[in-house]
Amino acid sequence: MPGDVFEAAEYDRRIARTRERLAEAGLDAVFVTDPSNMNYLTGYDGWSFYVHQGVVVTRDHDPVWVGRQMDAIGARATTSLPEADIRAYSDDHVHSPHDRHPMDVVADVLADLGVDDGRIGLEMDAYYFTAKSYTRLQERLPETEFADATLLVNWVRVKKSEQELEYMRQAARISENAMAAGLDAIEEGVPEYEAVEAIYSALIEGTEDYGGDYPSIVPLLPSGDYTGAPHLTWTDEPFSAGDPVVIELAGCRHRYHSPLARTTFVGDPPDEIAETASVVVDGLEAALDTVKPGVTCETVEEAWREEVAKHGIEKADRIGYSVGLGYPPDWGEHTASLRPGDETVLEEDMTFHTIPALWFDEFGVELSETFRVTATGVETLAEFPRRLFTT
Amino acid sequence: MPGDVFEAAEYDRRIARTRERLAEAGLDAVFVTDPSNMNYLTGYDGWSFYVHQGVVVTRDHDPVWVGRQMDAIGARATTSLPEADIRAYSDDHVHSPHDRHPMDVVADVLADLGVDDGRIGLEMDAYYFTAKSYTRLQERLPETEFADATLLVNWVRVKKSEQELEYMRQAARISENAMAAGLDAIEEGVPEYEAVEAIYSALIEGTEDYGGDYPSIVPLLPSGDYTGAPHLTWTDEPFSAGDPVVIELAGCRHRYHSPLARTTFVGDPPDEIAETASVVVDGLEAALDTVKPGVTCETVEEAWREEVAKHGIEKADRIGYSVGLGYPPDWGEHTASLRPGDETVLEEDMTFHTIPALWFDEFGVELSETFRVTATGVETLAEFPRRLFTT
Repeated sequence: MPGDVFEAAEYDRRIARTRERLAEAGLDAVFVTDPSNMNYLTGYDGWSFYVHQGVVVTRDHDPVWVGRQMDAIGARATTSLPEADIRAYSDDHVHSPHDRHPMDVVADVLADLGVDDGRIGLEMDAYYFTAKSYTRLQERLPETEFADATLLVNWVRVKKSEQELEYMRQAARISENAMAAGLDAIEEGVPEYEAVEAIYSALIEGTEDYGGDYPSIVPLLPSGDYTGAPHLTWTDEPFSAGDPVVIELAGCRHRYHSPLARTTFVGDPPDEIAETASVVVDGLEAALDTVKPGVTCETVEEAWREEVAKHGIEKADRIGYSVGLGYPPDWGEHTASLRPGDETVLEEDMTFHTIPALWFDEFGVELSETFRVTATGVETLAEFPRRLFTT
Repeated sequence: MPGDVFEAAEYDRRIARTRERLAEAGLDAVFVTDPSNMNYLTGYDGWSFYVHQGVVVTRDHDPVWVGRQMDAIGARATTSLPEADIRAYSDDHVHSPHDRHPMDVVADVLADLGVDDGRIGLEMDAYYFTAKSYTRLQERLPETEFADATLLVNWVRVKKSEQELEYMRQAARISENAMAAGLDAIEEGVPEYEAVEAIYSALIEGTEDYGGDYPSIVPLLPSGDYTGAPHLTWTDEPFSAGDPVVIELAGCRHRYHSPLARTTFVGDPPDEIAETASVVVDGLEAALDTVKPGVTCETVEEAWREEVAKHGIEKADRIGYSVGLGYPPDWGEHTASLRPGDETVLEEDMTFHTIPALWFDEFGVELSETFRVTATGVETLAEFPRRLFTT
């Protein structure tokens, strides 16, 4: 059944670590609205984040799920929360012009849990925690002290368990299949959507042993003049000879992602692109070579930067980020970044997507790997040739 | 190229209508963060809503796009905004632990536009306008008066133009193909993800004449014991004889959706389910029969409710909502709802997804249509048999 993804003990460990962070931050509770954090703490899974919902974790009470009535059935199916800890609001709270808001029910739950006279952490900068949710909670609980706890649970997620890594490796197998399908589909005259169809099909079909989940970001394949615009989605236009095409995708398994990017070229690549790709590969490998416990995130970026500087290219961008569990619109965890100034120290079983790219006005080349920090170095999750492809 | 979706005059009309609403609401500007509203007013399209971005519309200045530096290229590609009205923030504002937030740049833009001493509408309850975005704007612009303008632009979107309707009809063709593919794929022993693969493939493949865009919600197919949990996504489990399966999907064309739901049954449906399906069809058709300009939204719901009450079923849920342009996580427009208490008067060229359902603890039946209000009645966009299917 849907809920059999992790053992109960794993959720217990996650909740215990969250409570440690509550204590460190001097918080009595955290109200978690990021769907990834809701899933991480309870197993809750469903496409219901288009309405307000969340999970409350206090210092001593089990997590409490709050959501829409029709999604309570999904909460029963995907979590092992007791019935009393599944708190639902009626449908007239949904996109309602009336004087009802789901946060009214959240306020009631916080009061019932006895933390409304305490200090409560809110994910102030999480996608689905709106400004209105915040002002509404303030109105309903004027005595409560609220604090910003945006990444509190995200930081708990940084190091992965064996089971999480297993799902990420499964996702990497799917990524390999989908990348192969995409590269295979791209040809002069083929409309972009046909390549995406091939990729999507492989992402969902998965492998012989298991299917794929939906990725948090759709396959992106900026091409031609638009390879420099990495977040454009596909069109009906055909690929043309002379187009570079970047494919960025992620296999997904039980919401765990293993992103992968490669660049291909329709026809014979001009020297400029082939050389750029070779610089990206060298830079990527220089970055990967630095990865091991004890090294900082900025050191990994520095290795990339120094390598490409040998070719006269100056770049100081973020080249990667912590990755794993995710829901739309993002598979990034928003914690550690591989970029100048990020002094996060790498530890074993952290996982990153490193996606160094060289984008110019006329074209771009991207090449990425998802990796795990091992006891002594690095494990890249996907096995896929690191080079510029051609059609 | 990506930007050729609507004529310039259509954007001009949209902006003019938005300005009328600004004047009515006594606002000097609105800062729009809902990606659908950004697209509606400028044409901007890209999977970039996982970082902060928005569009500012004032009473006299052209819309100004604000977003991440790497997405400015996408803004140039998909909008016809002049370069001066594309305002980008550097990458160190993204998921940054430093003292930088994209709203600092938005505050600068509001000041540059001379509206920081005025009254500015914010989409307080839109998905991507976080609590932090709000408090940050308040900090940066302490003299500015902010007001809730959550659905201001959404209400402008309610009536569709000829070109918008054309895209929704194209999306309906895709929905028909995808529904046929899904129904065809579902069989005893087939894992759920294989049916989703067939659906996704059809959604992206589109028709012979054009491809499909990504829908704002993934195909949902709650089955078996979980048909009552409408937002669960697929698993590796095989369909079993005796399972009802609900398919809810939407073809999408240039971000315009035409959702469609049907229910199928693996094997021979028991009388209870066949009868429930027939009640849903009767209720749906009773609702559709009431649709015409001048009728209120709640009257449409009432027709459904009275029809199912003949069978002793009491339900007073929302059975539909205004639909059209959308980005994840939702294709609903969050304005008019077909539910008790909604006195919105139907006008020609409004479009709704009506999805009445009867959900019980053990099973559920859903059947939906996307419709346009015509001058005299109703046009359903998809042509697909209204009945319970069997495998």
